Amino acid sequence: MPPHLTALADSLPSTVPFVGPETQERNNGRPFRARLGANENGFGASPKVAAAMAAAADDMWKYGDPENYDLTQALARHLGIKPDQIAVGEGIDGLLGLAVRLFVEPGGTVVTSLGGYPTFNYHVAGFGAQLHTVPYKGNHENPEALLAAVLKIKPAMVYFANPDNPMSTFWPAEDVVRLIKGVPDDVMLILDEAYGEFAPAGTLPPIDLIRPNMLRMRTFSKAYGLAGMRCGYAIGDAEVIRAFDKVRNHFGMSRMTQVAALAALEDQAHLAQTVKKVEHCRERLTRIAEENGLSALPSATNFVAIDCGSDGAYALRVLQELGRRDIFVRKPMTPGLDHYIRVSCGPDVEIDLFAQALPAALEAAGKA
Amino acid sequence: MPPHLTALADSLPSTVPFVGPETQERNNGRPFRARLGANENGFGASPKVAAAMAAAADDMWKYGDPENYDLTQALARHLGIKPDQIAVGEGIDGLLGLAVRLFVEPGGTVVTSLGGYPTFNYHVAGFGAQLHTVPYKGNHENPEALLAAVLKIKPAMVYFANPDNPMSTFWPAEDVVRLIKGVPDDVMLILDEAYGEFAPAGTLPPIDLIRPNMLRMRTFSKAYGLAGMRCGYAIGDAEVIRAFDKVRNHFGMSRMTQVAALAALEDQAHLAQTVKKVEHCRERLTRIAEENGLSALPSATNFVAIDCGSDGAYALRVLQELGRRDIFVRKPMTPGLDHYIRVSCGPDVEIDLFAQALPAALEAAGKA
Repeated sequence: MPPHLTALADSLPSTVPFVGPETQERNNGRPFRARLGANENGFGASPKVAAAMAAAADDMWKYGDPENYDLTQALARHLGIKPDQIAVGEGIDGLLGLAVRLFVEPGGTVVTSLGGYPTFNYHVAGFGAQLHTVPYKGNHENPEALLAAVLKIKPAMVYFANPDNPMSTFWPAEDVVRLIKGVPDDVMLILDEAYGEFAPAGTLPPIDLIRPNMLRMRTFSKAYGLAGMRCGYAIGDAEVIRAFDKVRNHFGMSRMTQVAALAALEDQAHLAQTVKKVEHCRERLTRIAEENGLSALPSATNFVAIDCGSDGAYALRVLQELGRRDIFVRKPMTPGLDHYIRVSCGPDVEIDLFAQALPAALEAAGKA
Repeated sequence: MPPHLTALADSLPSTVPFVGPETQERNNGRPFRARLGANENGFGASPKVAAAMAAAADDMWKYGDPENYDLTQALARHLGIKPDQIAVGEGIDGLLGLAVRLFVEPGGTVVTSLGGYPTFNYHVAGFGAQLHTVPYKGNHENPEALLAAVLKIKPAMVYFANPDNPMSTFWPAEDVVRLIKGVPDDVMLILDEAYGEFAPAGTLPPIDLIRPNMLRMRTFSKAYGLAGMRCGYAIGDAEVIRAFDKVRNHFGMSRMTQVAALAALEDQAHLAQTVKKVEHCRERLTRIAEENGLSALPSATNFVAIDCGSDGAYALRVLQELGRRDIFVRKPMTPGLDHYIRVSCGPDVEIDLFAQALPAALEAAGKA
C-alpha cells in the first residue's frame, strides 16, 4: 500500500484555479495571436528592468537575499511606511497561501465574495477551511454584506478585492475604510489591491492605515508588467508581517526577481505611462463593445468586462469563438456575473485583432 | 485583540534555517571577498543561460506556464523517464515543504539524520509533525540505522541525502537501493540528490527505479549554477507527482526561471566542465587543509568539509575569524560533526583568498 496522503490532501480536488494559455495553445496546436485573458500587462515592464536583469545575469549562481532587504527598503521609501511593515513574496498568490496558513485553523471559516478570486479560495480549501460566500451587489463586491456576514459568522478571515477582479469595479476609499473599521479586531481582513495602480484617485485607503487585523496585498505582476517574475508584497502591522517568517520559504525568492522588481519600482515614469496607456485602451475596448451593440463596465483595472447581452452560456460561446480565432480572453463563471467576458488591456496590435475577431465570434456564438 | 495565529503557527519559533550572507555583509558593513559558504556554484551557469534570459526579458509581462511543460518535457527526455514522473517547483526547499504537507499529518513523525538538512526540518515543524533523528555514523548518514528507526517507529516519512550535506560524504548506489527496498510501502522516502551531479559514478541509483513511496529531489541550484533562479524538481511515481497539483502554487514558477533552467539543461558540455572544475577545486581545498596541518573529507559534492582538528567551539572561532577576513564559509553545528568547517568550491581567485586567510584565522582562533 503506497503512502497515504494526509486526510486533508486526500480530500482536495485535483482541479486547479486556472488553465494557462500555454495549455490552450498546445491543445490548439498554435499560439494565440492576442493574449488578453490573464490580466497581464502587454505594455510590458520598464526597459530598465531588462537592462538590470542583463547586468545581473552572471550573478545568478548566488541565492537571493532571504530578507529581500534592498527591495523591502525601496518599497518602504516609495510607500512612506516602515520596512518591517512589508513582506515580499512569490506573488500575491503565494502570500495569500501563507496568510491563510498563518491565520485560519483547519475547520475554520473564511468569508469572501461569490465569484471572487479563485486562487484565494484554492488556498482556503488547501488549508482545510470552509468558505462562506456573499453575492455581488450588481457588478460590485458588496462590502456592507461582507461586513454583515463577518459580524454574524465571526470567521477567521475575510477577503475583499478593491478594485475587483473579475468585474473591474471599485469602491471609493471611504467605503473601504468603513469596511476596515467595521471588521472586528480578531478577524483578519485581506485587502487585495493587485490592480490598485490603475484605479482612480481616491480609491485606495491611506497607506499609513496599518491595522493588526489587515493585510494589504500588492504586486509587480500588473501595473509593473512583471507577472512572469513572481513578486508580490503584503503590507501590515509589523508583528503580523514578522509572522510570515514562521512559514515562508526563506530562500524562495529568485535573485533575478529581486533585481527586476527593484528596477521596476525605480522607474515610476514608466509606471505612469503604462497607466495612461491602460486608460486609453479601456476606452478603446469600451468603444469596440459599443460598436458591436454591447456594453462594458467602467473599469478601475487593466481589463474591461464586456456584457455579452445574453446569458452565461452565450458569453461562454463568445469566449470559445474568440479562442477559435486565436484570441485569448477569460470570463467569470459565477451566475449573475457570467454574461460578461473579461478582456485585458494590451498594445493596439492585439486590440485590433480582438476588434476584428469579435463580430464574427458574436455571430458564430448565435443569439441565445 | 488582534487575530490569533493558528495554534500551530503560534507554536513555531521565529528562528530561520539559515542567515543569508547578505545579512552578514550588512552587519559587517562590507561585502565578503570570497562567497564560499552556501554551496553555491561560483563557476556559474552556462553562458547560454544569460543569452536565453536576455532574449526572453521582454516577455516577462506574461505569467509562466503553470504546467512547466517545456522544462518537464526536456527533463524527461534528458533523464529517460516520463514527464508525468516529474514535478518542477521553486527549488528543492519548496518541494520539500509541499511533500511534507501532502504526506505528513500534523502530529505525525518523520525520521531524518541528526545534523541533516535544516530546511527539511523547518518544514516538518511548520506542518506540525515531530522529528525523530538518527545520529551519523562517523561522517556519513547511517542508512542502516535510519532503516531500523523507520521499521521501529513507522513514521510517515524518512529523509536521506546522498551525497550528504553538510558532510559531503556519500553511499554507493547499492547501499541506497538497500535502503529504498527496505523502507515499508506506506512510508514516503525523500531521497535528496541535490549534489548528485558531483558524485562519483555508481553513487546514484538507476533513474528508472521509480517507486510509489519515494520522491527524489534534484536541483538547478548546484551543478547548473542557478541558485538565484529557484528551480528544483521531484522525480516519483506519476500518481504521487500528480498530488503536488493539489497544493502547489500553480503560477508560482517564474517564467524567467523556466527559460533559465531549460537553457542550462541543454548545455550538458558546460555541466561536464563545471564538474571537472569542482573536482579540481576539491583537490585544491584538500591540499590547503593539509598545508595548514588539517585534514579534509573526501567529497562527493561541490564543497569540502575541513576538520579543524579540535572541538566545535574552536571550529566556530575559525569560521568567525574567516568571516572577519571577509571569507564566507559555514559549518555544521551538531555535536560530532561540529569540528568541521564547510567550504564551497569556487573560482581560483576566491580559493586563493581563502588560502591566504586560513593560516591567520587558525592562529587567531587559538588552539582549544
